[in-house]
Amino acid sequence: MKLYDLSLSGNCYKVRLFASFIQTPLTIIPVDFMSGEHKESKLIQLNPWGEIPIFEDGDVVLRDAQAILVYLANKYGGEAWWPSEAHLQADVMQWLSVAANEIQHGPNTARLIKKFGLESDVALCLERSNTLLTLLDNHLSSHKWLAANRPTIADCAIYPYISVAHEGDVSIDKYTNIKAWMNRLKLLPGYMSMPGNE
Amino acid sequence: MKLYDLSLSGNCYKVRLFASFIQTPLTIIPVDFMSGEHKESKLIQLNPWGEIPIFEDGDVVLRDAQAILVYLANKYGGEAWWPSEAHLQADVMQWLSVAANEIQHGPNTARLIKKFGLESDVALCLERSNTLLTLLDNHLSSHKWLAANRPTIADCAIYPYISVAHEGDVSIDKYTNIKAWMNRLKLLPGYMSMPGNE
Repeated sequence: MKLYDLSLSGNCYKVRLFASFIQTPLTIIPVDFMSGEHKESKLIQLNPWGEIPIFEDGDVVLRDAQAILVYLANKYGGEAWWPSEAHLQADVMQWLSVAANEIQHGPNTARLIKKFGLESDVALCLERSNTLLTLLDNHLSSHKWLAANRPTIADCAIYPYISVAHEGDVSIDKYTNIKAWMNRLKLLPGYMSMPGNE
Repeated sequence: MKLYDLSLSGNCYKVRLFASFIQTPLTIIPVDFMSGEHKESKLIQLNPWGEIPIFEDGDVVLRDAQAILVYLANKYGGEAWWPSEAHLQADVMQWLSVAANEIQHGPNTARLIKKFGLESDVALCLERSNTLLTLLDNHLSSHKWLAANRPTIADCAIYPYISVAHEGDVSIDKYTNIKAWMNRLKLLPGYMSMPGNE
């Protein structure tokens, strides 16, 4: 299995982290993001959206970190990480939507602005981030894990950009339940870090 | 099953539309969104995110339209609408992420600005919408349905805000493949409209 990867990308890290949890080896293919390799013809043919990660497993080609998590969990990770029962699967799905929406347009974009010079509305991103962190912290005040009472791909989808949120000037210092959850996740067998959250 | 609903919400319509396709009756509970009922204690207890739709099936309470689609498809819709095989499920999942991300922050927000007076960056929403529509139209030039070569919850998650995009001054007139796909979807047994796409 191949992962077209950027070490600094939290979306790529979602895949590396989960593959490590389930002990599934990936062939990492570094993409020269800064020079725009992901917009060139070879990678655009694999992913017309011009983004990474891109994932290949034989004939299967996938874009979108959440979709890759679903694939890996369904095929290699088993019931624990991606429950098949409707209400548990939907519980996980709620957080996959948060990863695609509130995380992407909150702490992820705040970090892109601060660390990579993206031009966007920083005040809006910080406001969204604080709203999100408050909801997340409240949820984790009565839940050890985000969904289904166990570690799932929901945690793998949400953790990465929270763990490097400080790189976008989004502080999690006051969110004690989030910090405790992050520490629990770091203790899971197979955990790996990314640049910025070591 | 109860759906806390707003007839003008595309996210609520996703659930009504899919439930109608699979002939699953819903008890519709209209929410007085304009007076802020979704921010009051009863609904905030059901969904701390302060949003609708909210869905109840016995003890199961769900927020997020995509998660509700997954629940209904998994429990009542069957294999056709939400495939269990890994690469097909991930194919659908790619579009559930698009619904939560690019649709939400493109045509959905453009419509909120134009129709409901939301203060946000209209130029950015229109730019995102055009990028999205181009990618969607290209995809539909070689696919009858968004994922898995058949109608799935991917189509139910993407169609609603595309079908009312004109209410946010996002025109789909030049996107012939999108228009043909929308017409195919309207012909599926059980199709229902929402205000703005009749």
